[in-house]
Amino acid sequence: MLRSFIEVAPDSHFPIQNLPYGVFRPRTGGGQPKIGVAIGNYVLDLAVLEEAGYLKSTEAAPIRIWSEPSLNAFMALGRTVWKAAREEIQSLLANDNPKLRDNAELRARALVPRTDVDMLLPVEIGDYTDFYASRDHAANVGTMFRGKDNALMPNWLHLPVGYHGRASSIVVSGTDIRRPLGQRKPPEAAAPMFGPSRELDFELEVGCLIGKGNELGCPVPITHAEEHIFGLVLVNDWSARDIQSWEYQPLGPFLAKNFATSISPWVVPLAALEPFRISGEIQEPQPLPYLRHNGPHSFDIQLEVYLKSESMQQPERISAGNFRHLYWSMAQQIAHHTSSGCNLRVGDMLGSGTISGPRKESRGCMLELTWRGTEPLRLGSREQRVWLEDGDQLTLSGWCQGDGYRVGFGEATGRILPSSL
Amino acid sequence: MLRSFIEVAPDSHFPIQNLPYGVFRPRTGGGQPKIGVAIGNYVLDLAVLEEAGYLKSTEAAPIRIWSEPSLNAFMALGRTVWKAAREEIQSLLANDNPKLRDNAELRARALVPRTDVDMLLPVEIGDYTDFYASRDHAANVGTMFRGKDNALMPNWLHLPVGYHGRASSIVVSGTDIRRPLGQRKPPEAAAPMFGPSRELDFELEVGCLIGKGNELGCPVPITHAEEHIFGLVLVNDWSARDIQSWEYQPLGPFLAKNFATSISPWVVPLAALEPFRISGEIQEPQPLPYLRHNGPHSFDIQLEVYLKSESMQQPERISAGNFRHLYWSMAQQIAHHTSSGCNLRVGDMLGSGTISGPRKESRGCMLELTWRGTEPLRLGSREQRVWLEDGDQLTLSGWCQGDGYRVGFGEATGRILPSSL
Repeated sequence: MLRSFIEVAPDSHFPIQNLPYGVFRPRTGGGQPKIGVAIGNYVLDLAVLEEAGYLKSTEAAPIRIWSEPSLNAFMALGRTVWKAAREEIQSLLANDNPKLRDNAELRARALVPRTDVDMLLPVEIGDYTDFYASRDHAANVGTMFRGKDNALMPNWLHLPVGYHGRASSIVVSGTDIRRPLGQRKPPEAAAPMFGPSRELDFELEVGCLIGKGNELGCPVPITHAEEHIFGLVLVNDWSARDIQSWEYQPLGPFLAKNFATSISPWVVPLAALEPFRISGEIQEPQPLPYLRHNGPHSFDIQLEVYLKSESMQQPERISAGNFRHLYWSMAQQIAHHTSSGCNLRVGDMLGSGTISGPRKESRGCMLELTWRGTEPLRLGSREQRVWLEDGDQLTLSGWCQGDGYRVGFGEATGRILPSSL
Repeated sequence: MLRSFIEVAPDSHFPIQNLPYGVFRPRTGGGQPKIGVAIGNYVLDLAVLEEAGYLKSTEAAPIRIWSEPSLNAFMALGRTVWKAAREEIQSLLANDNPKLRDNAELRARALVPRTDVDMLLPVEIGDYTDFYASRDHAANVGTMFRGKDNALMPNWLHLPVGYHGRASSIVVSGTDIRRPLGQRKPPEAAAPMFGPSRELDFELEVGCLIGKGNELGCPVPITHAEEHIFGLVLVNDWSARDIQSWEYQPLGPFLAKNFATSISPWVVPLAALEPFRISGEIQEPQPLPYLRHNGPHSFDIQLEVYLKSESMQQPERISAGNFRHLYWSMAQQIAHHTSSGCNLRVGDMLGSGTISGPRKESRGCMLELTWRGTEPLRLGSREQRVWLEDGDQLTLSGWCQGDGYRVGFGEATGRILPSSL
């Protein structure tokens, strides 16, 4: 097994097999943002390695891409460079390569404890699209609102339903989330009212970051769709259900979602996920040809959600699922998204939509976990929850289990602040 | 009346009272994009004036903002600078100011015939939001699909319904539009099919460009909402109705809209529209306090739509309406959009949604003009139209009528190309 000279615990999310990219800023010294990869408890500072002439794979780039404040410039260099850079960094960290291992001075400068850095938004996201690609989620929500016989809309099994989200309010893990204000109209109320949302929810999602765009008017064939993916992050698509149910007809969710979306700071390259590639759900009816693909197009990524209220000492796990339960693959999402001719650009993010599994404990949002409030979550702290309350910290986590190592996503966390009213 | 030493016809859209900003590139010589204002049949090249030291109002900016490829840097300087720059440019063009008028060498370099330039997208648009703010449009569409008694959704009179659009596919006027492919399922079909849209439509809209952002979590009070507007453009939100009706439940329009949105190249500053400020529609029921404002918050902007098929010599007018028919003002749209805490950024665009008026000829899309295909449009060329056909050129135009002059938007035009299949 490939090993690094950096010690990495077996349950660490960041072994040499992973090497996710992120944008960080040293907590002291007030430096500029720059790019690193996570390895064990450290960040490997790629700007330092670049300056030291250690990164040949990207030195042809017209700018110093590892000193950029986002990954976009690196992503735009294309797959051949992604591959070469990953191999080069992996080689520099390997326990049998003395180049960095035995250069104490460079190691001291290039390896920064992760506790000493602030992580920033890794990518400048131009457009954010959110899908609705988990069948269990769509069926659960549909059952609650329309009954079991009409759970799935007629279009759901024929296309990956999606909609445009808000890019400006995507924030990095660790950013506090202000409870949104909004209009709501409970069924019993005669008129709508305005105030803090009372039905604040999370949504467990995985986001796919586009590393290769397409020209407007030129759809991406499904056979080439995965070539457009740079990597994946965890996404919490915070949702205000009371605002949503009043506003969403007929044009879809708007303010119920656009107050914040949290993503994990480390972008796991698609290459690191290859060992965990598996087949997705069986699709019946068979999709139309432009959405049809063979072979394994899903990934075995374990997903967890933790809640920590103000009175709790430790976070408590409230959900455990798996990415494999997505019905529509990322490749299908890309093929569908571009089928109209819509152009994707480097840095765009495609969210999976809430990922729920078939079991009760694998439901990916409070709406489902509490079955629209009828089954409150009982927490070990003797508290219970129907929706998120002020002070609650909600954390998504995810990883692939290898043989003796984990390829993980770290976490996407956020704490609810009281509304501004 | 203020006059320029440049001759401007009374029906020109670009007198000295207007001075809209745009990004242009000289058609010959292959220069870089730069910023100008339209005056009569000319573009005044602001980069040339800046270099000549004629623009004091913006010389404190850290970069040469008039040589930028978008208006964003100028917009970010704020309202005080917008006002100063407008006054300075207006003064330089006034017929009683010899400074530019009598400098033949500089005039020759700074005034470029508009026929000699290509206009580019004026603004880098981060997020694009589309509202649904015309009551006549919403009522017409609702009547067609749900009957007269349920025409407006219950939320419609309480909030400006809106949704997130696609920013990547916003194109400048003159860009050809490729007919989109997509899934559709006619009511009589047993299963959906994939192919070129057969129900291609336009939507007559006006877009508001944000010049001042707000912090995430900090709503913009309605009393300050207009301060965030830099200027307005015409918007054609091309729509594929057959794709839309199959895909839009429950998350709203997606591929039906994201294949292209055309905007006019000249951004008319809000200051140029002040003389045309009028009261909007009466709102009953009275909106909730966060959406309540007094005084005139609409504008008297005449809007027209022209169609030119391949067999026609001249475009034919197919719709004539007015911006004043919008029910929800731009100020209300901004207050609502940010009420959740959502942040707007410099360059964001808020579309009004299709603007229809109370009369049949003031309907703002084919869906309404042909009443869902039941009343085909009969054209002078002896052709008729239910939806747009390949080769059709669709042009939006708009202007405010002053006393002896017009403050106009120019046009937003696009021609339909056959699908790629």
